[in-house]
Amino acid sequence: MKSRQANRAPNGGAARTGFLKGLSVQSRAREELIKLDALLEEAVEESGVKDGVCHVYVPHTTAAVTVNEGADPAVTTDIVARLTHLVPRDASYAHAEGNADSHIKAAIVGASATLFVERGRLVLGTWQSVFFCEFDGPRRRRVLVKVIEG
Amino acid sequence: MKSRQANRAPNGGAARTGFLKGLSVQSRAREELIKLDALLEEAVEESGVKDGVCHVYVPHTTAAVTVNEGADPAVTTDIVARLTHLVPRDASYAHAEGNADSHIKAAIVGASATLFVERGRLVLGTWQSVFFCEFDGPRRRRVLVKVIEG
Amino acid sequence: MKSRQANRAPNGGAARTGFLKGLSVQSRAREELIKLDALLEEAVEESGVKDGVCHVYVPHTTAAVTVNEGADPAVTTDIVARLTHLVPRDASYAHAEGNADSHIKAAIVGASATLFVERGRLVLGTWQSVFFCEFDGPRRRRVLVKVIEG
Repeated sequence: MKSRQANRAPNGGAARTGFLKGLSVQSRAREELIKLDALLEEAVEESGVKDGVCHVYVPHTTAAVTVNEGADPAVTTDIVARLTHLVPRDASYAHAEGNADSHIKAAIVGASATLFVERGRLVLGTWQSVFFCEFDGPRRRRVLVKVIEG
Repeated sequence: MKSRQANRAPNGGAARTGFLKGLSVQSRAREELIKLDALLEEAVEESGVKDGVCHVYVPHTTAAVTVNEGADPAVTTDIVARLTHLVPRDASYAHAEGNADSHIKAAIVGASATLFVERGRLVLGTWQSVFFCEFDGPRRRRVLVKVIEG
Repeated sequence: MKSRQANRAPNGGAARTGFLKGLSVQSRAREELIKLDALLEEAVEESGVKDGVCHVYVPHTTAAVTVNEGADPAVTTDIVARLTHLVPRDASYAHAEGNADSHIKAAIVGASATLFVERGRLVLGTWQSVFFCEFDGPRRRRVLVKVIEG
C-alpha cells in the first residue's frame, strides 16, 4: 500500500497506468465524516489524467467512503447519528473487541467509491463532497486513490 | 457535467477514452426506483466499447443508484418502504431542510454502480435491472455514465 | 456471462482488455458471507495485470459483495445478524416469494466492489477480506471478476 508516483511520459504527458496514491487521514472522534475533496483533487492533478475515473478505496474494516452533501455539516451529523441508531455500539455482538458496530456500519456504507474525471477535474454534483467515514476512531487512517484514463 | 460524444477513431472503431454521457431522469414521487436499463444500453452502444466497464454515477446527494430485481415491481416497492422504515422522514434530524432522511438513504445505497460490458452489451444477471433511486422527488435529475474499454 | 480467458500478448505480456472471469460459489446457509480472496488472487494472476483495478460483480438480486474483516469470523456473523435485525424475513412485504428481505439486504450492501491491483497482487488492508454475501441460499451462485490495467 505504498504511495507511488505515476510513471509520467518523457514529454510530461499523462500517465496511462499505475497511478496509485496513499492519503493519510487523522480522525478526531469515534465516528466522524471527513471531507476528502481537496486531497482527491490534488491526486487527480498529480496523476496527469484528463478524462477518466478516480477510484477511492479504504483499506480498513471499521471505516468507509461515501459521497454526500458537503455544504451543511448537519447532514453528516445526521448520517452518523442514524447509522448509530440502526447499529448501536452496545447491542449483543459475537465480535468481542467492542467495535462490531463499526464493522457493520462499514459494510453498509462500503469501502470504495468511483468518481469521474473530466478535463483534469473531479466531476461532483453541486452539493457533493467525498467523505472518509470513521466508525472506530480517533486514529490515523489510510485512503488509497487510483486515477485511470478512460 | 455536460454530455459528451466519444472521440471515435477515424476508422469508426471503439473510442478508448473520454466517453461520458449525461442522462436525464424525471421522477414522479418523493421516493421511487426508476429503471435505467434501456438508457444504459444506449450509452454503451454509443460508446463503441465492446468489452469493458460501465460506471453509473449520480451527481446528487438525495438520490442513489442500485442494481436489483426488475421483473416484479413489488421488489422496488419493498426496498423503498423498508428504507423509509429504517430512516423515517420525521425523526429528529439536525439538517433543517426536511430531507435529512433522503441524504441518509443515499449514503446507505450509494452514488455509483459498476457494471460489466461484453460484446457491446451490459452484463446483467437474469433478474437484474439498474435503478435510479429517487429519495427526494419529484424532480428532474441527472445520471452520468462512463464506459471504458478494458 | 461465460468465463473468458484474457487475450495475452504474443510475448506473454499483460492483456490490456477483455479479461472477464466467472467464479462459482456454493452457499450452505440462507445467509452467509463467503471469503473470495483466494479465487480473486487467482483471477488477478490469470489476467496478467500488474497494476490496475479488480472489479467484482454479483449477477444476482438476493446476494451482494462486501469487503470487511476476515480474521475473526464473529464479524461476519454480526453483519448477517444485524442486517436480519434491520430487515427481518417476516415483515409485511409486497413481494410474495418469501425473499423480499434478501433483495433489500442486497440493495443495502451492493452488487459490486472495486479493488486495487499492484505488482500483480490485490491491495487489501491488513484485516480485509472480500466476501460474497448470500442472502437467499443455500444455492450455487456466480461471481464475475474483471481485471483492468490502469
